[in-house]
Amino acid sequence: MRNRVFIKNLKEHIGKEVVLAGWVNIRRDQGKMVFFDFRDMTGIVQCVVLPSHTEAIEKAKEIRPEWVLKVSGIVNKRPEKNINPDVQNGDIELEVVSIEVLSPAHELPFDMSLEGYNLELTTELDNRALVLRHPKIQAVFKVQETIIDSFREFMKKNMFFEFQAPAITPATAEGGAEVFQVSYFDKKAYLTQSPQLYKQIVMSAFERCFSVNKIFRAEPSSTTRHLTEIVSLDAEMSFIDSWEDVRDMAEETVRFILKQVEEKNKEHLKILGATIPVMIEKTPTLSLREVQQRIFEKFKRDVRGEKDTNPEDERQICEIIKEETGSDFVFIYGYPTRKKPFYVYPNPEEPEYNEGMDLLCRGVEWLSGGRRISDYDQLMKHVEEWKMDPEKIKMFLEAFKYGVPPEGGFAFGAERMTMQLLGLKNIREASMFPRDMNRIDERLGSDGY
Amino acid sequence: MRNRVFIKNLKEHIGKEVVLAGWVNIRRDQGKMVFFDFRDMTGIVQCVVLPSHTEAIEKAKEIRPEWVLKVSGIVNKRPEKNINPDVQNGDIELEVVSIEVLSPAHELPFDMSLEGYNLELTTELDNRALVLRHPKIQAVFKVQETIIDSFREFMKKNMFFEFQAPAITPATAEGGAEVFQVSYFDKKAYLTQSPQLYKQIVMSAFERCFSVNKIFRAEPSSTTRHLTEIVSLDAEMSFIDSWEDVRDMAEETVRFILKQVEEKNKEHLKILGATIPVMIEKTPTLSLREVQQRIFEKFKRDVRGEKDTNPEDERQICEIIKEETGSDFVFIYGYPTRKKPFYVYPNPEEPEYNEGMDLLCRGVEWLSGGRRISDYDQLMKHVEEWKMDPEKIKMFLEAFKYGVPPEGGFAFGAERMTMQLLGLKNIREASMFPRDMNRIDERLGSDGY
Repeated sequence: MRNRVFIKNLKEHIGKEVVLAGWVNIRRDQGKMVFFDFRDMTGIVQCVVLPSHTEAIEKAKEIRPEWVLKVSGIVNKRPEKNINPDVQNGDIELEVVSIEVLSPAHELPFDMSLEGYNLELTTELDNRALVLRHPKIQAVFKVQETIIDSFREFMKKNMFFEFQAPAITPATAEGGAEVFQVSYFDKKAYLTQSPQLYKQIVMSAFERCFSVNKIFRAEPSSTTRHLTEIVSLDAEMSFIDSWEDVRDMAEETVRFILKQVEEKNKEHLKILGATIPVMIEKTPTLSLREVQQRIFEKFKRDVRGEKDTNPEDERQICEIIKEETGSDFVFIYGYPTRKKPFYVYPNPEEPEYNEGMDLLCRGVEWLSGGRRISDYDQLMKHVEEWKMDPEKIKMFLEAFKYGVPPEGGFAFGAERMTMQLLGLKNIREASMFPRDMNRIDERLGSDGY
Repeated sequence: MRNRVFIKNLKEHIGKEVVLAGWVNIRRDQGKMVFFDFRDMTGIVQCVVLPSHTEAIEKAKEIRPEWVLKVSGIVNKRPEKNINPDVQNGDIELEVVSIEVLSPAHELPFDMSLEGYNLELTTELDNRALVLRHPKIQAVFKVQETIIDSFREFMKKNMFFEFQAPAITPATAEGGAEVFQVSYFDKKAYLTQSPQLYKQIVMSAFERCFSVNKIFRAEPSSTTRHLTEIVSLDAEMSFIDSWEDVRDMAEETVRFILKQVEEKNKEHLKILGATIPVMIEKTPTLSLREVQQRIFEKFKRDVRGEKDTNPEDERQICEIIKEETGSDFVFIYGYPTRKKPFYVYPNPEEPEYNEGMDLLCRGVEWLSGGRRISDYDQLMKHVEEWKMDPEKIKMFLEAFKYGVPPEGGFAFGAERMTMQLLGLKNIREASMFPRDMNRIDERLGSDGY
């Protein structure tokens, strides 16, 4: 739209006539004058229509929330007594000269004002298209955009090559219990659960790679933490000296993301009442056995010898570390080798524990990764011990047949990080169009689709 | 890897000892000395092992292509007579002091040297993991990375919000002939064919949006132009004055991408023998009827009155425009309204033609888009005339119920653009892990997976 001025730039035009385009937020009639809040993608400004502008005031009396207008008006400083320092453009207003209605709107099904908005998640999802206009909802996805952008930016800075991981996969190597099946012409295919094997292939050719891609989980579970379609941020790097190189890269990636969100999404964090978790200079790292010992000492709860952490362990170790160091984050490494996938690297000094790791924050896992096996013979030995069919991962194995450096990588879900960073209660709030067992946009009927 | 120097930076270390890490390209024994070309992700350098380094030369005689090494050596200028100005680091070489083998490699199944590499596409795909190491293959995906990055960069510059479009969709509105079906718990879902309706929803809340996402096409077709899984680059913008605003944004997006590829991928274009197509200051725009008239005048081939262009038309109009203006690109707009999807905006002055458009380049379509219907009543009228079930696009329609500005958008496939830009013969060459009717990584057996 030619000559349009964005609302965030209005202060550069004080005393001048400008053209705005956007949506009506709220209208307030006050005697002969009409006030309305007007928004575009850059912000909000108060508009005032004086009775002297006869044509404009007639239109102004007609307009309602969500109507789309093109408005001409003069940018005025507000009188001292009307200044509101707590809102954007609280010291100016637009004196409307003319209004062009670009699109009317039906009456809203619920209150969309910043103060009045208060919907159950189900209603919110049932009205996703409309609700996306609300600043609180937009704030979530603006933060998510920064998370994904910052991941990409940090990877590129560190010479990682971005590739496009596939969504459709052939027979899965690890069995098909929680995999979605696709009718692929007259054959069967599956939706990928992880780009793990692909990123290891690409790493073997490009040294360092990453991808931002969809993964799919068919777990028949409807908790506040489950989605069937997830945005996965994946990285893989070679020529590492030890698994700690992978840990350090993961740590610096998260640190960079937090810093970017803090800088770029101040207003969004404010509107959501969120605070960035504390990452100290060097995030504490404990082995699984150390974690269990520390929990035993502190809480007298004996989980020593367990093969993995449970949610209670994760909460308690985070509590211990927070109290001791101030860090909201903690790395746990050294899980039982046989409990984890075949490609995870066993600690050469005690091969029954591996060099896989998790990064926890505020009691919840944020990121997983670790060193992988890069030696072909060792990999083939694991393939056999894990009782996998090498035919089904032929392409993956081929990469390792022809020389692969020591390597590792990590991955995390964009929705999970968005949720935890913002303190959201349900992961569905962190997915713009969440898919779960019972919903794909609409609630799924019992008749199926 | 600590202290590692990247090969592209070797010239900063002349006369000094450095540590390199990478892969052996080729080994050449010359009497008592051993030469080998050594590569990392930043380039190639020639290494020379002198007989005086007894331990190193012993190892050097053992190494083979694709072995992974850590090499210490002194960066020397080459003697004048050995300088090769045509290759990277042609004026230096590394005098090897020690070699550490990080990983051996099996013998290669075919010649992987730059000159010797010459595989059928099928063999190439059967050996994808290994072949990804070849500079010609890498060049393709480095260019593709730039295409996608530049799209994103240009969108962000122009205030487009990036969202994550979903892959799994409920019942499709337009029928399911060429859609992949997913077993979704006890129900059915589908893989998205296009984020079209989602991007229009997001536009209605964020004004301008884009997405980089997978789309899926179940066409039972196995041509050189068909993939079942495609990376789609999608944009949608509101507050347009006319469809030409969308056209101009599409043109400038492509122009930006071409410029970025030209600047950032010089060496890749060279290795692939590709030339960037010419985009003149203002790409010519013709209506479908003008295109048909021009073809008739020039080639005496009468396609006037046809409802769409065919491949021959596309070649011929590109030829005409190239000859006349020097432009490799041409926009065509104004297709018969009833032949296109329900959301495309009919020209108000002759509603039987729409304001949809295509951008052709060198005889092939690169991009599609146009203005969309933003008025709810007009949209509902189309929904009815196109005999669509409004229940199945409820969320989409809801967006338009509550005030949407005049708007439009465009989309293009990353693989298609990569293929055309680089003059590749088969779209499978432009997809790292191409999926088609007969292949998902491996060739699909008749027994199915």
